[in-house]
Amino acid sequence: MRYEESVIEGRNAVLEAFRSGKTVDRVFLLKGCQDGPILTIAREARKQGSLIQYVPKERLGNLSPDGKHQGVVAYTAAYAYASVEDMLELAEKKGEPPFLFLLDGIEDPHNLGAIIRTANLAGAHGVIIPKRRAAGLTAVVAKTSAGALNYTPVARVANLSAAMEELKKQGLWFVCADMGGQVMYDLDLKGPIGLVIGNEGEGVSRLVREHCDLTAAIPMKGDIDSLNASVAAGVLAYEIVRQRRVK
Amino acid sequence: MRYEESVIEGRNAVLEAFRSGKTVDRVFLLKGCQDGPILTIAREARKQGSLIQYVPKERLGNLSPDGKHQGVVAYTAAYAYASVEDMLELAEKKGEPPFLFLLDGIEDPHNLGAIIRTANLAGAHGVIIPKRRAAGLTAVVAKTSAGALNYTPVARVANLSAAMEELKKQGLWFVCADMGGQVMYDLDLKGPIGLVIGNEGEGVSRLVREHCDLTAAIPMKGDIDSLNASVAAGVLAYEIVRQRRVK
Repeated sequence: MRYEESVIEGRNAVLEAFRSGKTVDRVFLLKGCQDGPILTIAREARKQGSLIQYVPKERLGNLSPDGKHQGVVAYTAAYAYASVEDMLELAEKKGEPPFLFLLDGIEDPHNLGAIIRTANLAGAHGVIIPKRRAAGLTAVVAKTSAGALNYTPVARVANLSAAMEELKKQGLWFVCADMGGQVMYDLDLKGPIGLVIGNEGEGVSRLVREHCDLTAAIPMKGDIDSLNASVAAGVLAYEIVRQRRVK
Repeated sequence: MRYEESVIEGRNAVLEAFRSGKTVDRVFLLKGCQDGPILTIAREARKQGSLIQYVPKERLGNLSPDGKHQGVVAYTAAYAYASVEDMLELAEKKGEPPFLFLLDGIEDPHNLGAIIRTANLAGAHGVIIPKRRAAGLTAVVAKTSAGALNYTPVARVANLSAAMEELKKQGLWFVCADMGGQVMYDLDLKGPIGLVIGNEGEGVSRLVREHCDLTAAIPMKGDIDSLNASVAAGVLAYEIVRQRRVK
């Protein structure tokens, strides 16, 4: 695994992480293991909403940094997550229509950090990421966000489409980035908006795309397929900034 | 050093790299060493325009991947460099006013790769980088450019300001990114243009800045200082794309 700085293993270390209030992203438990401490860890994980995966011994051995996992390996987050409500409150406090980023499976922590940095500077009120198949708030993300993680709330949700449906009730519109869409300059991107950025390789998933109101295309005048995900997020975010600026 | 994949050491390996036409970015030679093979390497390096540095034994030992440097360590580029003339020709062939990127000391190869990728998709005709204190075309850059290096010419010049003065004679204007400048939306960025992006930490250097005609600011609505360099390059490049698009 890539982010050793946030991997912990062993029963005591993992339990201690939960008890000290650290944000634990994922817990890998030995399949079939049912003894006391493991059950306690599973209970703590459920309480905090960590993702639990039961894996065979070989897999756990591969995940373990020092081979002393005692049946448990956990990934902790460098920063605590916020809630979507925090973001809407922030927008209200600033007297601005909500402007959120939704990341549909950004996997590279450098991209995640750069996007949180962009969200901060573009004046967005928060970044929503999914629990599964996505980078979490690790130390690498904190570093590449250049301090933005201290200001811009990041929420983690179990289901991105469900979160979008909830936000639609609050009046938000959603625009996703896709080459097949309308050129972004021709869309109306003012008002309460959620900008949806897809995975580095796959783009926006079908289900999430179906929940979007608009599809925005960045003009591509070159020979290759797509921009880097964090660059695409920046270009789209600043088109929103430009349109919001025009009174 | 960070890019082991392109470090070679030892007299034969380095001479072979020169003779096979590989692009050698930098050569580190043992200070005071004057024997035949070392002098031959220095001559080849001068012929190709590689940067030569004479360093003490300890430094060379640190640079050496395997400790078998025999007085020489060299950094080779994964791709060959183009010339500035190639870029102007490309613009002419496409019947477009030249649009170039000038990178004033981008050090992170991931940023360099992402910027070349952006340059390709924004329809720029080339990327100019300086020889000193900047990332060269290593394997990491090639990879993060996502294939753009195969299409977008990259030239390396000894002196960025001198190159700018030459290009001004060809009718180019230069715009650099700086927070102290005018908001980019209010500038006229059409016509033959060179977009100057500064170093990740320091921004655009004083000398290069003095050779710029315009200073463009990206609106910053957040709490932190600056965007990631490759995101900033993308946002500015697409403002140029937007303005060029309006007939």
